Amino acid sequence: MKEKALVLLIEHKFRELGELLASLDAPDAAALLAEFPEEVLPLIFRLLPKGLAADTFVEMDADMQKRLIGAFSDLELKEVFDRLFVDDTVDIIEEMPANVVNRIIANCSNEKRRAINEVLSYPDDSAGSIMTIEYVGLKAQMTVSDAFMAVRKTGVAKETIYTCYVVDDDRHLIGLVTAKDLMLSEPDVKVGELMETRVISASTHTDKKEVAEMIRKYDFLALPVVDSENRLVGIVTVDDAIDVITEAAEDDFAKMAAIEPMENSYFKTGIFTHSRKRMVWLLVLMLSAAVTGAIITAYEEAFAALPLLIASLPMLMGTGGNCGSQASTMMIRGLAVGEVEPKDIGRVLWKELRIGAVIGLALAVVNTLRIFITYHGRPDCLMLALVTGITLIAVVLIAKSLGCALPLAAKKLHLDPALMASPLLATVCDTCVVLIYFNIATLFMNIMG
Amino acid sequence: MKEKALVLLIEHKFRELGELLASLDAPDAAALLAEFPEEVLPLIFRLLPKGLAADTFVEMDADMQKRLIGAFSDLELKEVFDRLFVDDTVDIIEEMPANVVNRIIANCSNEKRRAINEVLSYPDDSAGSIMTIEYVGLKAQMTVSDAFMAVRKTGVAKETIYTCYVVDDDRHLIGLVTAKDLMLSEPDVKVGELMETRVISASTHTDKKEVAEMIRKYDFLALPVVDSENRLVGIVTVDDAIDVITEAAEDDFAKMAAIEPMENSYFKTGIFTHSRKRMVWLLVLMLSAAVTGAIITAYEEAFAALPLLIASLPMLMGTGGNCGSQASTMMIRGLAVGEVEPKDIGRVLWKELRIGAVIGLALAVVNTLRIFITYHGRPDCLMLALVTGITLIAVVLIAKSLGCALPLAAKKLHLDPALMASPLLATVCDTCVVLIYFNIATLFMNIMG
Repeated sequence: MKEKALVLLIEHKFRELGELLASLDAPDAAALLAEFPEEVLPLIFRLLPKGLAADTFVEMDADMQKRLIGAFSDLELKEVFDRLFVDDTVDIIEEMPANVVNRIIANCSNEKRRAINEVLSYPDDSAGSIMTIEYVGLKAQMTVSDAFMAVRKTGVAKETIYTCYVVDDDRHLIGLVTAKDLMLSEPDVKVGELMETRVISASTHTDKKEVAEMIRKYDFLALPVVDSENRLVGIVTVDDAIDVITEAAEDDFAKMAAIEPMENSYFKTGIFTHSRKRMVWLLVLMLSAAVTGAIITAYEEAFAALPLLIASLPMLMGTGGNCGSQASTMMIRGLAVGEVEPKDIGRVLWKELRIGAVIGLALAVVNTLRIFITYHGRPDCLMLALVTGITLIAVVLIAKSLGCALPLAAKKLHLDPALMASPLLATVCDTCVVLIYFNIATLFMNIMG
Repeated sequence: MKEKALVLLIEHKFRELGELLASLDAPDAAALLAEFPEEVLPLIFRLLPKGLAADTFVEMDADMQKRLIGAFSDLELKEVFDRLFVDDTVDIIEEMPANVVNRIIANCSNEKRRAINEVLSYPDDSAGSIMTIEYVGLKAQMTVSDAFMAVRKTGVAKETIYTCYVVDDDRHLIGLVTAKDLMLSEPDVKVGELMETRVISASTHTDKKEVAEMIRKYDFLALPVVDSENRLVGIVTVDDAIDVITEAAEDDFAKMAAIEPMENSYFKTGIFTHSRKRMVWLLVLMLSAAVTGAIITAYEEAFAALPLLIASLPMLMGTGGNCGSQASTMMIRGLAVGEVEPKDIGRVLWKELRIGAVIGLALAVVNTLRIFITYHGRPDCLMLALVTGITLIAVVLIAKSLGCALPLAAKKLHLDPALMASPLLATVCDTCVVLIYFNIATLFMNIMG
């Protein structure tokens, strides 16, 4: 596809190239355009049919959009943005520098400008910031055929017309009818008789992740957003909910690997931005690990006397880190999907301690066997097996407890539980491992010495 | 809500309890029912209005469903399952023991039984296994008003009617019209003139994650599923796509924390299942870590001569693990969302090596400063700073390279990239750290000694 388009471009076969582009869906057209040199972008973009051009523009990344806006005449700018939905326009505006924003806003209709400003004023991460203000609003006294007329009249520009909301004269949300209800009903039935009055809605300040979770849970195509007086101000559609869900999961994946979330894709992000996003936590964790190192030096005598002690250190630290990260991942995801809450801490601890006991015992048995087999015949073999066995059980129990307690505590303190994931936890566990291990070892060595 | 319902139950106010339940949505009703003792479940379930009862049944967990089916008469069973969609019925059947499945199938209509068997025969994780075979099929020669009639006639039992598919006489998929198109068109326009002929479809054997990703990417409400001869056999709806996306992300979260994915929620899963799901990887990783331990013992002399060497080990192993997990998380998620492919390995390695160089240098500088400040005055201070600095840079470079290479290699070999996440990688990195560190240390000690 790319080769074909490139050949057409080189041969200046613009009509054929336009036809090729017109046969694509917007995401594919945007992906194809991203493959071409930036210089020819405005030229190729102008070959797209108007409707597809606007949809493709939405799918592009901010750099391409900025470049295109720079190349657009005011008329072209207006043509593209007139066809965009308010929520898409807001998404684009949020990525642009101030001078570009001013040009965009200047070329919008008054009505659209008002709507954009309204959405822009809602806090990031709120339902208000992702809602669209374009929806079908009906009145209870309308008939089904009135409703159809209303849908037809206003429907073209609406992002979704499949759930229509019924409002009273003061725009209070009083019910909803689906397009399905309308299609299956006789034309003279009143909307008021047809409508579902139990409407689940979000407020403009509801967290957008909560809104997405409601849409997922109830299998909605859209969720109405109301202000503090239950007046309908917009809707969040299922496609935006999916984006919120995947974005939130990707952010958590990054945070749980000690990376600050990034806006752009892997390849689009430069070396230094990548380095910066990963450096912060690496530095914090490196310096914390130095504490563990300092503690180790306090036990120089112990491992100078028995160097074999050090041989179990990677295994103990690794197991502690892994057990902790298992428990913390369970908690972080449990909190994210609303399955676990901070008040469950007692239940969770009790459960994790029992799981820890089962796992700790099993690992200790396997490890004791391994030490017997590996170091069979050495005089300190029994002592070593005993010390690592006891440490292993203690480490598993502590790692499991910390692993569930830290994310729940973070949530309680309104911090992000995902930050309490494996990397931080492993560092804390390492310190515990060293302290427990060398103390138990010193204790047994004194007994035996 | 729970208290109120419980009081009504205790006071035998069944009519009020029924009204209370009828005011709930299915997911909330299922959640409420889960709070009651199992013994009264059939009693309370029978208070639900028929339609809500079926929807609530779908939302329950397998244990509650099994208990209810056990209490149902054949008539009740038929009443509930007649109202369920085929894909929901299949989901339930897959969780039930054979005798319960037989009872369910025996009480289904012939048509439904055929449909269930068809869906059941598709491989797990395929589009066929999550599709619904209930969709609106139109013919090109129909008019808009014919189409409306068809929607009305078949629409009640269809999971989604908002995207109607146009098939020819041999059921080949030739186009689609949305309910929006139908609602905005004149009644006598032909469907054939209205339909979009560029239809994106999946095959019955397409991976369900790919299908979900297509629905997300193109903002579809449904995606048609065709057989090998392009005959329409079903559709996958957006609500199922969201479930596939969230389930896949949760599976990856678990796998990346060395936990085998679980079917049930955290609290519903027993201690021993939890232990088993976490034990496998812990054992593998524990035994692998023993290799690192064995390597350490080969360098006993080195750290017996300079015990301070051990102090940097947790920091080096921790940093290696963290750097590796940053890179591997980037790759695993990049692969999952289709942003990175195995063939990108060259580009990725080159990028990660440069990021590694920036990060490695920065960390080495900070660490050297730290060692100077902490151990200022000790004769081996300079040597230690040099050795850990060089090791740190090498470790970061190796961790970053392994972190991106392992998941890409796994994908290439058709293994699950998520298994190459932090825990396994950290263990591999630990071995590298020990080898590099002690070799460099021995080298410099010889030079200096």
